[in-house]
Amino acid sequence: MSHPLFEKHRATLENALKAIQTRGYWAAYNEMPSPKTYGETAPEDGKRAFEAHLGQNFDLAQPGQAAWHGAEQSPFGIALNVQYPVCDVQALIDAGQRAMQAWQAVGCEGRTGICIEILDRLNKQSFELAHAVMMTTGQGWMMAFQAGAPHAQERGLEAVTYAYREQSFVPAETIWEKPQGKNPPLVMKKHFELVGRGVGVVVGCGTFPTWNTYPGLFAALATGNAVIVKPHSNAILPAAITVRTIRTVLAENGIDPNLVTLCVSDKRETTQQLVTDSAVKSIDFTGGNVFGQWLIDNCRQAQVYAELAGVNNIVIDSTDAYKPMLRNLAFTLSLYSGQMCTTSQALFVPANGIETEDGHKSYDEFCADLARAVEGFLSKPEVAHAVLGAIQSTDTLTRIEEADSGALGRVILASKKLDNPEFPQAEVRTPILLACDATDEKSYMEERFGPISFIVKVTDTAAAIALSERIIATHGALTAGIYSTKPEVIDAMTAATWRSKVALSINLTGGVFVNQSSAFSDYHGTGGNPAANASYSDSAFVANRFRVIQRRYHV
Amino acid sequence: MSHPLFEKHRATLENALKAIQTRGYWAAYNEMPSPKTYGETAPEDGKRAFEAHLGQNFDLAQPGQAAWHGAEQSPFGIALNVQYPVCDVQALIDAGQRAMQAWQAVGCEGRTGICIEILDRLNKQSFELAHAVMMTTGQGWMMAFQAGAPHAQERGLEAVTYAYREQSFVPAETIWEKPQGKNPPLVMKKHFELVGRGVGVVVGCGTFPTWNTYPGLFAALATGNAVIVKPHSNAILPAAITVRTIRTVLAENGIDPNLVTLCVSDKRETTQQLVTDSAVKSIDFTGGNVFGQWLIDNCRQAQVYAELAGVNNIVIDSTDAYKPMLRNLAFTLSLYSGQMCTTSQALFVPANGIETEDGHKSYDEFCADLARAVEGFLSKPEVAHAVLGAIQSTDTLTRIEEADSGALGRVILASKKLDNPEFPQAEVRTPILLACDATDEKSYMEERFGPISFIVKVTDTAAAIALSERIIATHGALTAGIYSTKPEVIDAMTAATWRSKVALSINLTGGVFVNQSSAFSDYHGTGGNPAANASYSDSAFVANRFRVIQRRYHV
Repeated sequence: MSHPLFEKHRATLENALKAIQTRGYWAAYNEMPSPKTYGETAPEDGKRAFEAHLGQNFDLAQPGQAAWHGAEQSPFGIALNVQYPVCDVQALIDAGQRAMQAWQAVGCEGRTGICIEILDRLNKQSFELAHAVMMTTGQGWMMAFQAGAPHAQERGLEAVTYAYREQSFVPAETIWEKPQGKNPPLVMKKHFELVGRGVGVVVGCGTFPTWNTYPGLFAALATGNAVIVKPHSNAILPAAITVRTIRTVLAENGIDPNLVTLCVSDKRETTQQLVTDSAVKSIDFTGGNVFGQWLIDNCRQAQVYAELAGVNNIVIDSTDAYKPMLRNLAFTLSLYSGQMCTTSQALFVPANGIETEDGHKSYDEFCADLARAVEGFLSKPEVAHAVLGAIQSTDTLTRIEEADSGALGRVILASKKLDNPEFPQAEVRTPILLACDATDEKSYMEERFGPISFIVKVTDTAAAIALSERIIATHGALTAGIYSTKPEVIDAMTAATWRSKVALSINLTGGVFVNQSSAFSDYHGTGGNPAANASYSDSAFVANRFRVIQRRYHV
Repeated sequence: MSHPLFEKHRATLENALKAIQTRGYWAAYNEMPSPKTYGETAPEDGKRAFEAHLGQNFDLAQPGQAAWHGAEQSPFGIALNVQYPVCDVQALIDAGQRAMQAWQAVGCEGRTGICIEILDRLNKQSFELAHAVMMTTGQGWMMAFQAGAPHAQERGLEAVTYAYREQSFVPAETIWEKPQGKNPPLVMKKHFELVGRGVGVVVGCGTFPTWNTYPGLFAALATGNAVIVKPHSNAILPAAITVRTIRTVLAENGIDPNLVTLCVSDKRETTQQLVTDSAVKSIDFTGGNVFGQWLIDNCRQAQVYAELAGVNNIVIDSTDAYKPMLRNLAFTLSLYSGQMCTTSQALFVPANGIETEDGHKSYDEFCADLARAVEGFLSKPEVAHAVLGAIQSTDTLTRIEEADSGALGRVILASKKLDNPEFPQAEVRTPILLACDATDEKSYMEERFGPISFIVKVTDTAAAIALSERIIATHGALTAGIYSTKPEVIDAMTAATWRSKVALSINLTGGVFVNQSSAFSDYHGTGGNPAANASYSDSAFVANRFRVIQRRYHV
């Protein structure tokens, strides 16, 4: 007797299983905010649903509630004033543990069906979620819609699909019949129960509160665990909307909604108490190295899946499409003002310049041309605002100021503050480009999150490839790129990325960008360098989130 | 163009894949030392091959060799005097890293084929390996043959099979074609390279130098890693024979044999240097808590797969097969003098006794009856010696003495020293049974490795189940058992094992024993309690030993 929601979503699951096996293009949810897909009134309904949260208490009916809290500041400068329940951490953990028993009992198919139903329902809320993501993170509208809603949902579905593949491979039971020569065989019946490891905690980040949260959230949930979502203090609303929808769908299906709860607190100690609790068996984290390393060092009772800082970089050797390359780079550096964990921070250019179809370009010419390309790309205000969004944190504003001062390198292109007519208080900044020498490692060899990039002068391409490998192996990266017309250079870079374990984009000159990662096809993070110890998604991301508990007896 | 060894072993692999999916009975290698399978001269040839090692230098032609070392003491008292190469650790690591490139290039199918060929060749050496295992560990002959050779090989093959399943699921390449409405689609070619994480170290134990080494060794190897085998100082020979065969097969296939090396040293610091090296990315360990915990705490650069101590236990509520139950328990407690990580240490019996088909048995009657069953089972010397083997370490002899003194509980059955006519110097001991109260936690609630078991008096069955759960959750266990005629009791115990995450054997009264774990069917360890953080074998055991490194470009 299959679970009705498993039957309902069987076709989606089968397509998703095919997608993770081929890693070709596939999507379950429309990335375009099309009224045809989402309904004629969806844009307006979603906006109203978002606005209805503002200035209100976001009730979730969670156990152990003691207070309300919320202090999100919109990078676009609008007033949010949403208050969220502050609940006793122990009450959330206890309730999650209790709810896990029925969640285990519903089985792999039931959990899979319910998780896909949740994603389906979240998809229907895409406009509401997009506004919440936009207004808490500073992403431009289209990015907030795509990355915040359908693309995040795809990443969630991808995790559910891997979780299903691993769990469904374990047989529920078997007959073990061992021949004994002329004697009757030994016969045993064995049952194999899939059991979640315990409570999972998912710690969100301030820039991608759904895209970076859904993989861990759905991986942990689908494999039978309770989940406590601990959002970034400035991007709670997208997580709260998500948690509410999950709780609704769980309750509809007879599962205690306290299986999934939201943990909001204004005290660092509360988070530390949560993540170090012995009942917490997995932690998914996206964010900075300081807290990430603290989690890894202190939460020894849990599996920690961490995405941390890195120094993404691109080696520029040569090209036969100079202008398209510059346009591609300009978009990459501008998108969401470089506030992506995948944005390139360091471009390595040989001291002697590069060959192009347009003739030789010196290092300085390349610097000037890239600066012009960025300026040109952002010359129309409506494009600039759509692409740049707003600066998410004051820390990033401070970093931009520091870079603009010339302290980190020669300023090739200064950052400009733009006025957004729609959101007069929005903090909008254009990218800053700095020139420096490969020896200036202190400048470019640590993550400087935000629209700050370095054009690093290296001896030659071989040195650039070696430098890229060393940076990635020691400081990590989620993305690397190479531009070259020479197969042997591409081969050398490819081999370097096998050693440093980073995803490589080669000669991107069209509508795909190094900082974009497509669910079901691109593995986000390899799990093999310091920028991330796990990947979205692969078998390793899900296989250790549940355990198989067997029992056996003679028959 | 498939690898010839992949083709050669394709049928074996396909059967193994079926076996891990059904987890029913299947075996690739004959567990009986049958001349029909192994050849008429195999027993004699194997014995001679073993004897040819004695008193010799075991040359492996490894890099960085500086000295010879070896000080294995046979529990059977025979002289071994084998000397092994002592190599510079850095030289082994560097050579392993260099060899990994070609190992990566041979691909998943090539690695799988070569690994199965290695296992096949080890299978042909089963008699030689069995003698080596017997004489270094003290196992009786039949156990040394089965657990030391075919069963260990099955566990190795099982790991290779899971590794193949995970690796082969990742496509080598794909075409990603994303529709763009009326515009031409975005088309990219993507390649996905399987890359081992780095050098794997496998730390062997003194009691099962192949059975507990092969899963990690073959899991790491099959997923593209170099492996350094660090055997227990008293059980080097089985590992050395294994490493030599692996190196031979690698060289035959054009792979640098330094991909797999043996690390022997008489200095603890050498091991510590090895396991904490930044190039070492996985460590498989079987052994005590002290060094195991040290590895987990100090080798933060590596994935540590650890099987540690535990307190295996059985709840005895009632039975309708009293004598068969006692016989089954007597065998379990006697086999290899309880020197198995799966041997039951604590039997929980209600203070009011148990119901049997033979009438009520008081706690004291059960104690006396089990003691008689053990005595009876071991009354024939040839049975006793075959089953008991010899005591592997002086620490275990010390523990037996301590237990015999009555310091840990009332002695129900004293341990006897038996004389083995074939090996006059063998240290042979029969099991000791102690009675104690559930409140005497200090006695029974830590692992007392060896033939020392406690019959613990508990208030009632419910208390016994709760105690079992608490012990397993806090101290770990690889095995748990229950005897009961009442379905509700079995259900309660089942639910307890789901929470404490341990494999449960129910009412074993025949030819299967709680301490036996059958490859391809029984998961050895759940990975969910303190006795082991991983299982032989499941997806989690292999999925994180390699990473997928992608590259993409427009087409």
